[in-house]
Amino acid sequence: MAIITLTTDLGHKDFYQSALKGAILSQLPNANIIDVSHQISSYNIPQAAFILKNSYKFFPKGTVHLIGIDANYGSNPRYLAMASDGHYFVGPDNGIFSLLFEHPPTKIVAINIKAEAKFLHFPLLDIFVKAACHLANGGVLTGLGAETTDYNHRSLIQPVVEQNIIRGSVIYIDSFQNVITNITKELFESARMKRRFEVYFRRNESINKINIHYNEVPEGEKLCIFSISNFLEIAINKGNAAGLLGLHVGDIIRIEFYDK
Amino acid sequence: MAIITLTTDLGHKDFYQSALKGAILSQLPNANIIDVSHQISSYNIPQAAFILKNSYKFFPKGTVHLIGIDANYGSNPRYLAMASDGHYFVGPDNGIFSLLFEHPPTKIVAINIKAEAKFLHFPLLDIFVKAACHLANGGVLTGLGAETTDYNHRSLIQPVVEQNIIRGSVIYIDSFQNVITNITKELFESARMKRRFEVYFRRNESINKINIHYNEVPEGEKLCIFSISNFLEIAINKGNAAGLLGLHVGDIIRIEFYDK
Amino acid sequence: MAIITLTTDLGHKDFYQSALKGAILSQLPNANIIDVSHQISSYNIPQAAFILKNSYKFFPKGTVHLIGIDANYGSNPRYLAMASDGHYFVGPDNGIFSLLFEHPPTKIVAINIKAEAKFLHFPLLDIFVKAACHLANGGVLTGLGAETTDYNHRSLIQPVVEQNIIRGSVIYIDSFQNVITNITKELFESARMKRRFEVYFRRNESINKINIHYNEVPEGEKLCIFSISNFLEIAINKGNAAGLLGLHVGDIIRIEFYDK
Repeated sequence: MAIITLTTDLGHKDFYQSALKGAILSQLPNANIIDVSHQISSYNIPQAAFILKNSYKFFPKGTVHLIGIDANYGSNPRYLAMASDGHYFVGPDNGIFSLLFEHPPTKIVAINIKAEAKFLHFPLLDIFVKAACHLANGGVLTGLGAETTDYNHRSLIQPVVEQNIIRGSVIYIDSFQNVITNITKELFESARMKRRFEVYFRRNESINKINIHYNEVPEGEKLCIFSISNFLEIAINKGNAAGLLGLHVGDIIRIEFYDK
Repeated sequence: MAIITLTTDLGHKDFYQSALKGAILSQLPNANIIDVSHQISSYNIPQAAFILKNSYKFFPKGTVHLIGIDANYGSNPRYLAMASDGHYFVGPDNGIFSLLFEHPPTKIVAINIKAEAKFLHFPLLDIFVKAACHLANGGVLTGLGAETTDYNHRSLIQPVVEQNIIRGSVIYIDSFQNVITNITKELFESARMKRRFEVYFRRNESINKINIHYNEVPEGEKLCIFSISNFLEIAINKGNAAGLLGLHVGDIIRIEFYDK
Repeated sequence: MAIITLTTDLGHKDFYQSALKGAILSQLPNANIIDVSHQISSYNIPQAAFILKNSYKFFPKGTVHLIGIDANYGSNPRYLAMASDGHYFVGPDNGIFSLLFEHPPTKIVAINIKAEAKFLHFPLLDIFVKAACHLANGGVLTGLGAETTDYNHRSLIQPVVEQNIIRGSVIYIDSFQNVITNITKELFESARMKRRFEVYFRRNESINKINIHYNEVPEGEKLCIFSISNFLEIAINKGNAAGLLGLHVGDIIRIEFYDK
């Protein structure tokens, strides 16, 4: 049974997400439709990318991931389908694809499906559904349009590494109020070179250890951990780190390394 | 795999919606259960009707739509199953059926299933599940009870059309804060007769054009569009129309037509 | 198609719940995954137990229920799988199992699966998924680890019964604002012995009748009913009982019985 995941900002209150599922099932009655999220903040491309980037890898190869976020971008939007890492992706060329993958996609096509008149302002329900169902049904990418290598690029703020310092920032706060930074485990270890370190995140707050379990510190105590997203996370064991430590998306996180 | 959709005010916090799914799967293990919404405001029949009316058409013919909203209406509630437009519907005769269809249903039966004692106050989990699974399993409508033509009617406020004016109102505000009126495209075009027009919605606010894409106007600019629900919608490209224009459900929308 | 239900505090905003579904589908592509809830309050074991206890019975026998709440409890967490009442359960031995069943489980095993390094702080995505899929795929409990009879017990506050009085308390407030107590129908009837009674819940508020339907009283009127959870519930027909009666989780409910 073909799996199609949905990542959108449609919410659950309106009829849009269920209409989307109905349209998919009308094309492909046996589709197994899984919500990655319909709760992306409206038009928030980096947030959608963060969610889907961290989720899609858990699905079986061959899964089709439909991205419905800011589909009406710009004055002449383009829609793409691509294969990457054994998965398929369908979505608008608004820059989100450049935030999803660590390596360039295997193959990209510009979708050549015209929307029906009543769906012109809502391509999700028409073009995206047709493209996703084509792929989920075993169709080839080039059945959707001509191959291309060109797609819009966006960049996220990257950490800055100096000899003894990493300057990163907070990119996401999850529903447990864990604070996720843009500092990967690989970056941290390569800059650290086994030295002592201190993670600074507020004038007088710092942590000098990486934990493996949240419960290695007492409840209510702060800690650093590499989260499942592979990024350095500042957390409080069973507590509200973002709130209690006063951290927000965009805040600077500084790691200093000490030779002895 | 038979599809059963759910439209209820049960929410996602409690065990009710999952108990409903469990009860369906206990009767029909292969049912494909799709949430239209569990976030209808409590007992809000017009809202539930608006959501389901706009969603069900996207599902394949033969889908069974279970309606769980205000099932305990009145002192002697009656439950109906009906076929309309190739779809099946099961729900309480509280007026919602009169708001769902543009044409009278093909066939209606009064469900003749007695609730088990412990479900007397919660017919959804018992009577509605049995009826929906009977239909989803290929059973005929008349297997559920006697045919009837009689069901409760509710009316929504309809737009008033005079020679040069339509007076409509706001019926729904979606999660993007788009403002949806009760003025259909057909009504608008037939009253317009290709004349110039002005859509008035606040003392000094008006729009004199219908757009086809949100992104035909700059970001932050207001526009009118016929939404996927086929109703005139007042929106702001990537903005909060309801909030910024101060529009609420029930507010009057006036369209004036000009001969030249 | 094997059914796996999910009861977690992961929420819907982050990528965690969809990653969990992807991980399950990667192990068992035909799994039918049903959300009991992802909206349990963080680490709230009694709430998770209340939700799952009342929901699981509606699912078909053989369903696997995955419990993802406070999995990192204590300094050396243990994970269990068990069979009870024809259903399977997989979760942390944090006391939740003692709140789920009326009778001792049929069989319990201590799960003997080691987490991969990157999942050490998130056993849900690894150990729990493997265990649940093993069971959903027809594997036996003892394939997961050694049998045990030992598991953590928690206790809930139980009602106190004297000759003419039951002293219970509010344990849950649902999304309709119905107030659910810890007084079961059996306890009530056995203490009542067909006598007259009065349910007191605020200084001057009481109810002396049990209704069977909400709509037996006028809209806006308070009533007592035995809810689908089999507990005494204080409700207002189509109204907000918790808010209007000022009742909160933990508040005392007193029932007095009168000989004549």
